[in-house]
Amino acid sequence: MTEHVTVIESVRLDDENNQIILLDQTQLPNKKVFLKLETVDDIWDAIYHLKVRGAPAIGIAAAYGMYLVTKHVEATTYEEFDAAFQQAKGKLASSRPTAVNLFWALDRMERRLEKEKSTSIAEIKQALKEEADLIKQEDEEVCEAIGQYALELLEDGMGILTHCNAGTIATAKYGTALAPIYLGKEKGYNFKVYADETRPLLQGARLTAWELDQAGVDVTLICDNMASIVMQQGKIQAVLVGCDRVAANGDTANKIGTSGVAILAKHYGIPFYVCAPLSTIDLDTKTGEEIEIELRPEEEIKAKWYSEPMAPENVKTYNPAFDVTDHSLITAIITEKGIVYPSYQDNLKAIFE
Amino acid sequence: MTEHVTVIESVRLDDENNQIILLDQTQLPNKKVFLKLETVDDIWDAIYHLKVRGAPAIGIAAAYGMYLVTKHVEATTYEEFDAAFQQAKGKLASSRPTAVNLFWALDRMERRLEKEKSTSIAEIKQALKEEADLIKQEDEEVCEAIGQYALELLEDGMGILTHCNAGTIATAKYGTALAPIYLGKEKGYNFKVYADETRPLLQGARLTAWELDQAGVDVTLICDNMASIVMQQGKIQAVLVGCDRVAANGDTANKIGTSGVAILAKHYGIPFYVCAPLSTIDLDTKTGEEIEIELRPEEEIKAKWYSEPMAPENVKTYNPAFDVTDHSLITAIITEKGIVYPSYQDNLKAIFE
Repeated sequence: MTEHVTVIESVRLDDENNQIILLDQTQLPNKKVFLKLETVDDIWDAIYHLKVRGAPAIGIAAAYGMYLVTKHVEATTYEEFDAAFQQAKGKLASSRPTAVNLFWALDRMERRLEKEKSTSIAEIKQALKEEADLIKQEDEEVCEAIGQYALELLEDGMGILTHCNAGTIATAKYGTALAPIYLGKEKGYNFKVYADETRPLLQGARLTAWELDQAGVDVTLICDNMASIVMQQGKIQAVLVGCDRVAANGDTANKIGTSGVAILAKHYGIPFYVCAPLSTIDLDTKTGEEIEIELRPEEEIKAKWYSEPMAPENVKTYNPAFDVTDHSLITAIITEKGIVYPSYQDNLKAIFE
Repeated sequence: MTEHVTVIESVRLDDENNQIILLDQTQLPNKKVFLKLETVDDIWDAIYHLKVRGAPAIGIAAAYGMYLVTKHVEATTYEEFDAAFQQAKGKLASSRPTAVNLFWALDRMERRLEKEKSTSIAEIKQALKEEADLIKQEDEEVCEAIGQYALELLEDGMGILTHCNAGTIATAKYGTALAPIYLGKEKGYNFKVYADETRPLLQGARLTAWELDQAGVDVTLICDNMASIVMQQGKIQAVLVGCDRVAANGDTANKIGTSGVAILAKHYGIPFYVCAPLSTIDLDTKTGEEIEIELRPEEEIKAKWYSEPMAPENVKTYNPAFDVTDHSLITAIITEKGIVYPSYQDNLKAIFE
């Protein structure tokens, strides 16, 4: 490897000062502000308001959150400690409904708690810190593995379209959908990346274009409605996206607009790849119809980012944060255990065995 | 008819004061400002900067422009007058390349000039005014006819998706794609309209949502990347769009993103209708590949509407203003002479006969 990509640590524990140090993604690319989160409300607010976003990063923040807010609980029995733990868990679980990693990370912390039931409260607290550290460390390994598998499907010089941000700042390191781009760059590959701006919150413009540009990757920003023309013009050889939840049949919830990109890719005969850590694959969700789609405030569409309101004040809006891409539109799902092809109903289950 | 829709006159001649009175569409919906255009540079600027937009409205503005800027030409011979006419025509023709109505209106004014060759300069000037008035008046009749034909394809209560703005302010009256919605409303139909916001310049948010809301039509604003989810959820029974140029084989240039909407509609089995005055059908253009797609400044994507820059300053952008929808994706093209179905290669030609 000739060069290493710049990696920004978006979530980190400062144990000594009882804080989570969190890159405020809502202020990028104009300001690089690190927030100091201390309370369960701080962490809930950071997740709800997308200061931390990206399914893996949300999971890491929630795991450290569970450690931090129970660290100073003055419990003498397991039951007392567990009551405080459950209260914090309930609060954090209410922050965003769609990404399964949030629940996955909270459940994993809970299982660790249960495992340590017979130990002291001090030991339990130490174990929760270990578990959160482990979630973060594993995420880094997972992203690198996904990147290596995805890279097998790509060639130097390819045009790659991505939607939203599934990059370094959405994970512990490397990202999921952007991992092969970074790993390819380390090998000297020159990909031409097209980043959908991803309305309404512009994660593609503010985050993907920013982090790829910082890493020296050739990136071109387009509006979401330009995905069709760049495909039509032969500029795109592969689509890579992350995901928030994959159902047992392969239906994939991801940032709003992903299903549209998948339909365009199919129309133009371009492979459409979903990069999915096993932690986002939810075999308990049978199909995409069971996935709750978060509806967000109308201000995001109408005014939030603008110097002047850009729509009539009283007009109705519809603002779903995610959509479900039908499994029939997905060429392959790339996990840290390998590349999964259809039929997803069988092959997703098999990868957990 | 029980009620009449509110119509805003977006382009009008004030002959006495030697001005075109033009609604500045870039300031909507926050301010309703009427500009007074006097010179060829004023008119060029208004077209280039989208203060007037929508293929028919551009044609009307250009026609009045040709009258206005040649009105005070002190020519004694036809040749002298023609030289001034050609200079103004060349300037206006350079304002925007994609919409054919601009060239159609300029050519029509030129043919009228040629027809009046043997008359006096004063009579020529009067004839040019008549021709521009006629272009505007005919556009109103054309829009109403398109609306009536399109209405035959729709039913009360339908959900209709539209992209960009092909409404009253884009034409002399009623619009093209919005004409059946207004005519339906006059009959007491309740359509549920979904308006794509249409990045980067937000014509859907600023103009379509605004004018439909003003007219009391049930309209919901969505981001462009939400078109797939509303179709998936069964909210849409028809797509209606305007167009900037239709080639002889039916390939249709319209606002960037239209081709993507057409692909989604086909995927979900929803009819996709193009509303096209004959003035936008260009039999001299064989296929969409011959249509020049205007590229616009990167500031439109990166910063123009925002209080803070919403993308990294140095990141590349790609900003095509239009795209071409392949004829195979279009269910029907609705003109003032009737509804045209495939094969467009034969049937478009026939409608001119």
